[in-house]
Amino acid sequence: MSVRAHIWRVQIVAICVAISCLYSACSLASESLASWNAGAAKSAIIAFVERVTQQGGADYVAPVDRIAVFDNDGTLWCESPIYPQFAFALDRVAVLAPQHPEWKDQEPFKSVLAKDLKGVAATGQKGALEIVAATHAGMTSDQFTQIVTDWMAKARHPRFHQPYDKLVYQPMLELLAYLRDNGFKTYIVSGGGVEFMRPWAEQAYGIPPEQVIGSAIKLKYDVVDNVPLLVREPEIDFIDDRAGKPVGIFKALGKRPVAAFGNSDGDYEMIEWVTAREGASLGLLVHHTDADREYAYDRKSSVGQLNKGLDDADKRGWVVVDMKRDWLQVFPQ
Amino acid sequence: MSVRAHIWRVQIVAICVAISCLYSACSLASESLASWNAGAAKSAIIAFVERVTQQGGADYVAPVDRIAVFDNDGTLWCESPIYPQFAFALDRVAVLAPQHPEWKDQEPFKSVLAKDLKGVAATGQKGALEIVAATHAGMTSDQFTQIVTDWMAKARHPRFHQPYDKLVYQPMLELLAYLRDNGFKTYIVSGGGVEFMRPWAEQAYGIPPEQVIGSAIKLKYDVVDNVPLLVREPEIDFIDDRAGKPVGIFKALGKRPVAAFGNSDGDYEMIEWVTAREGASLGLLVHHTDADREYAYDRKSSVGQLNKGLDDADKRGWVVVDMKRDWLQVFPQ
Repeated sequence: MSVRAHIWRVQIVAICVAISCLYSACSLASESLASWNAGAAKSAIIAFVERVTQQGGADYVAPVDRIAVFDNDGTLWCESPIYPQFAFALDRVAVLAPQHPEWKDQEPFKSVLAKDLKGVAATGQKGALEIVAATHAGMTSDQFTQIVTDWMAKARHPRFHQPYDKLVYQPMLELLAYLRDNGFKTYIVSGGGVEFMRPWAEQAYGIPPEQVIGSAIKLKYDVVDNVPLLVREPEIDFIDDRAGKPVGIFKALGKRPVAAFGNSDGDYEMIEWVTAREGASLGLLVHHTDADREYAYDRKSSVGQLNKGLDDADKRGWVVVDMKRDWLQVFPQ
Repeated sequence: MSVRAHIWRVQIVAICVAISCLYSACSLASESLASWNAGAAKSAIIAFVERVTQQGGADYVAPVDRIAVFDNDGTLWCESPIYPQFAFALDRVAVLAPQHPEWKDQEPFKSVLAKDLKGVAATGQKGALEIVAATHAGMTSDQFTQIVTDWMAKARHPRFHQPYDKLVYQPMLELLAYLRDNGFKTYIVSGGGVEFMRPWAEQAYGIPPEQVIGSAIKLKYDVVDNVPLLVREPEIDFIDDRAGKPVGIFKALGKRPVAAFGNSDGDYEMIEWVTAREGASLGLLVHHTDADREYAYDRKSSVGQLNKGLDDADKRGWVVVDMKRDWLQVFPQ
């Protein structure tokens, strides 16, 4: 390459880089959080992102460490009146019931089939594990993915009559995108099953399977008729809830995130751990205060109970989002 | 922006994109695998990468699914005469011995302190677990990271007198870079401890902590004096070896990779699973055949035993790298 050609190339590249930077900056400064009402929550989010992305600033965080973790149920999608994965399990029991005539007289299945949720609850952890074993195990991971995908396409929320994966929160979608535009890698960290979320999380949130952390049952590698399979075993491997969340994150990433978003006391330890890091951090709780547009629940709820988090948020400097006040819109149009 | 300015901008961007594409193509076509001797192994690697990256080709794999998994011990770095993590554990016993006078008369520590490796081996799995518990547990993850980092800086390989993390294979470094240049995401999938590898893997291989999958002990979240900690418990959580490797990969990624690289029967199931995927795949075994420059071992070795893999590689279409013949250089200069 001649010297002149080389100089020409360098100039073109430099102009190009300058143009892209200018356009990125413009797009970042623009209104990315359109469904967030102007207020303390929105301001805190923007202030945090500006602090950690400001080159040379005291709170600057390198892109490689810009990790943001999001609870799923009640933080990214609607978890009421019952957790969607619980609705999936109940529906699955009904589908499988013809192959199990004995379930008619056998708890917890008897209560499930009678749609008696109090009866199901009365069977406690033992009942829950039996439902998990019957509905979430005994097939390959590929088969389970298909079962979840088929259910998601057909099932409808009892109040909103929408597929569950359409009942995601518009302001949180904007927040995910805003963080990613600012160099963050976004992860789901949920008490829900990892293989229950992965089939639809990428389309719903733009979060790929390898960025979904969740509860899991044991998997077993097996080769049947020369075909390698991963078989789902009826045994809990890991519960990614409460004190399990920091553990689940560190097992997967080997790092502490800089921002954590949740809505219940199940997210307390995750937010506690993240906001205890040296340097800037952001902890945020979505408070469900909007019975008209979604649901209102907190301290005494059987789903997404938020009690200790409400008590401590202020003194810990965590942002509390008041859904009714802070969100102009709840679900996508 | 005026129409003229807009057209000008579009043109500049178009020229820029064209230049980058041209330069990428040149760099891809250039000699990326310089330490690989021309031969069947090198040709197979290049042919595979060209097939899966050819837009519109029958074997095209979208960048999001271009996942390559690498065993570590004996595949990316030297594992002889003993696994480096075992050397770490033995050194650690010696460091801790003054606090444990009882170890002088207590196996497996007695044999470790006497540098009697046969004696250590005779204590079997029970002895191994006691060594793990004494050297890998009872501290926080942050403390363990520091211990590993300090050890890596000081410890030297008994034959090559180099830090262990300098005894990585130059041809494999080139292969990692070549795959990444072609849009692959590269992961370590090792029987070694995940927290033993993460502190140095990024510098040694360019593989960040969240792309390291390995064996693990249990972690416990605890808050001591208001400081949240992750404490390493003396209990095995997961063994990422043999049939554990496909399980470990799927747990972490929710996907099946398209290329798998190993060197021992501990990698058999991982390569079996990866190469059983529909569409193009690559399975490769590094055969240690070079006693002069490194080590020669296979079917009867106590480290990195390769027996079944050698028997089946041909019929399964796996590439076997003959280190002596296929690698022009073993370690970086």
